[in-house]
Amino acid sequence: MVKVKYPNFIQIDAQRARGIVEDIRNDKRGEWARLPVETNEEEILRIEKIAAEVREKADYLVCTGVGGSYLGHRAVIEALKHRPETERKTQVLYAGNSLDPEELSDVLERIEGRDFMIDVISKSGGTLGPSVAFKILKRKLFEKYGEEEGRRRIIATTDPNFGMLHDEAVKNNYIQLAIPSGVGGRFSVLSPVGLLPMAVAEIDIRALMEGAKHEHDVFLEDTDNGSVLKYAFLRDYLRRQGYDVEVLATFVRRLHYFQEWWKQLFGESEGKKRQGIFPAAVSYTTDLHSMGQYMQEGRRNIFETVIEVAGDYKEETLAWMNKMAEEATVAAHREGGIPVFEIEIDDLTEKTLGELIWFFEAACAISAKLAGVDPFDQPGVEKYKENLNEKLNISREG
Amino acid sequence: MVKVKYPNFIQIDAQRARGIVEDIRNDKRGEWARLPVETNEEEILRIEKIAAEVREKADYLVCTGVGGSYLGHRAVIEALKHRPETERKTQVLYAGNSLDPEELSDVLERIEGRDFMIDVISKSGGTLGPSVAFKILKRKLFEKYGEEEGRRRIIATTDPNFGMLHDEAVKNNYIQLAIPSGVGGRFSVLSPVGLLPMAVAEIDIRALMEGAKHEHDVFLEDTDNGSVLKYAFLRDYLRRQGYDVEVLATFVRRLHYFQEWWKQLFGESEGKKRQGIFPAAVSYTTDLHSMGQYMQEGRRNIFETVIEVAGDYKEETLAWMNKMAEEATVAAHREGGIPVFEIEIDDLTEKTLGELIWFFEAACAISAKLAGVDPFDQPGVEKYKENLNEKLNISREG
Repeated sequence: MVKVKYPNFIQIDAQRARGIVEDIRNDKRGEWARLPVETNEEEILRIEKIAAEVREKADYLVCTGVGGSYLGHRAVIEALKHRPETERKTQVLYAGNSLDPEELSDVLERIEGRDFMIDVISKSGGTLGPSVAFKILKRKLFEKYGEEEGRRRIIATTDPNFGMLHDEAVKNNYIQLAIPSGVGGRFSVLSPVGLLPMAVAEIDIRALMEGAKHEHDVFLEDTDNGSVLKYAFLRDYLRRQGYDVEVLATFVRRLHYFQEWWKQLFGESEGKKRQGIFPAAVSYTTDLHSMGQYMQEGRRNIFETVIEVAGDYKEETLAWMNKMAEEATVAAHREGGIPVFEIEIDDLTEKTLGELIWFFEAACAISAKLAGVDPFDQPGVEKYKENLNEKLNISREG
Repeated sequence: MVKVKYPNFIQIDAQRARGIVEDIRNDKRGEWARLPVETNEEEILRIEKIAAEVREKADYLVCTGVGGSYLGHRAVIEALKHRPETERKTQVLYAGNSLDPEELSDVLERIEGRDFMIDVISKSGGTLGPSVAFKILKRKLFEKYGEEEGRRRIIATTDPNFGMLHDEAVKNNYIQLAIPSGVGGRFSVLSPVGLLPMAVAEIDIRALMEGAKHEHDVFLEDTDNGSVLKYAFLRDYLRRQGYDVEVLATFVRRLHYFQEWWKQLFGESEGKKRQGIFPAAVSYTTDLHSMGQYMQEGRRNIFETVIEVAGDYKEETLAWMNKMAEEATVAAHREGGIPVFEIEIDDLTEKTLGELIWFFEAACAISAKLAGVDPFDQPGVEKYKENLNEKLNISREG
């Protein structure tokens, strides 16, 4: 269970909370909240079976995707990659999340002469970066294995009914996984979008879902005063007090991509109608020697949320010093006048990451509702795409 | 020469600018500004000679250091590591910049069974993370080579006259490089702090210094209206208008550590007396699919600074699409009501990085002065250290 520690708790408006929860429950786009409850044994088994096939046939699974089709599984895979038991047979690589040519050339270099498969993750199939990467990787795949076997090495994680990628997958008989239609990208990590790459990377997806379900159940048991509501209402309170930057801090380097996932979750859900808290991330202790001065004495427009991992830290070890530094920092920043949340999980495992994912998703949806914006749309993301398509078309015609 | 593009230039207060420049010139701690001019042939030759010895004797140079003793050289080395001509004989590794045990264990794993040397970079030698890492690495070194040869494999980049590390270096006859006493950590990249690791990584440090000197000279030629002043005065103007977050954006992935260096430079120089603009960084296009929504439609408390690399981009290539995406994004964000600076360099080489480093350092110092804070101190960084030392001592005594 995720714990939220904060020195001065405000009163939660329980009636308002219940209204918002009811709203989300009745919103078709609130389906992410029930994924840990409603994903059935058959679906999990199918994902595990496909993952086993990938591990059998490939040294690399290259996932093409960006944003919500990229960050969630990478967050979980990187967070757990330290464990010695995961000396993985098959490595997960990522392509198409940027247009920087080096990203793709790095991937092509890695897979050269090795066996690989592709998981093309996209609701529509239309986003430029991932679609260019998929096109190039598919060509490689067909060159290496021929078209027939090549097609068997493509997993299309996409809309089950519509879209360019869906049509291509049906026509060519790719392995297909469905992005549930009510689940938006940034809320999709507990759907096949995230679960397949994780399963390939030997993440225990059952334990992850169990953790998420646990957090879901805990939330429903205490709809008046649970951790999710505390975090959401306190964020809202701070926002109204004029705090416009939230810094997500961690003392664990391998939570880097979890922080990136969190930035998208909150930034994309809340940053609209000229509203929202700017989400930033720091990795301590290294960033105490770059951003530490600002945190301690800079403009007081920020609050800080620290992800903490509980546990017994043996004295005099580096891990213990790191934990002491965490305590020292929380105290120092509070002395410096920064509101600091401590978000604590019991350890760093599939179960607790599942809890943390569901916790943040729920808190984010409620928080956005409190701010008066729609947590589930992202109209602004299209603007640069429109400009870009115009440029590319003009240039092609010109 | 660094170019600054911004749609609406304000009037620069030339008299105030000259006063500030004069202040910095008369400040002992403004010595960083003259490093590209005053570093002489003898000093460069000595660094090159030591670097050649490292490349001769070691597969890895492990640099221990944090903040200003870490970010500058890493920024330049990572920014230029794409080039095929730098298939480097000796790799530079980084240790002690965090207390996370995995950072150090990763380094120990890499150097196992290989030849290595240590560059211990610290003004005092007292910071916990780097000093623990140095202690452990030194033990490894002595075990492998014996104490006599071990000592020959340590470079101490430190204060030339005082401090724990200085004393240890003298006593044990380590190779010594001086951090000039007037140069603070975050302004030290063009001193031996940055130059030695770069030279080991086969960066052309003469071209880098040449670029910095060029930017320095250009600045002195136009103290009324040059790029540095434009950026500094416009930042100040935006700050006074209530903008409290600056987002440094780039479309080039390998500028990641350059962005980290920039965050320390500005955050630590300006974030004091409850003042300052919060420095954040995004890496596009990937972050357009996470932070893009906020940038386009979120709270208008932010302005954006985009580092652009000019050049001929061949149509229909990925690099060209990336460039088009850059233009599309700048236009989209301006339409969304964000003030956007474009900071353009001619290409991505030692020379232009030298220009960019000096440009940002000078703009930062002037900008902090305009905000009424001392650009060259960092009293707040000590606070968490004090708390931590208390914890560690109590725990040791208890």
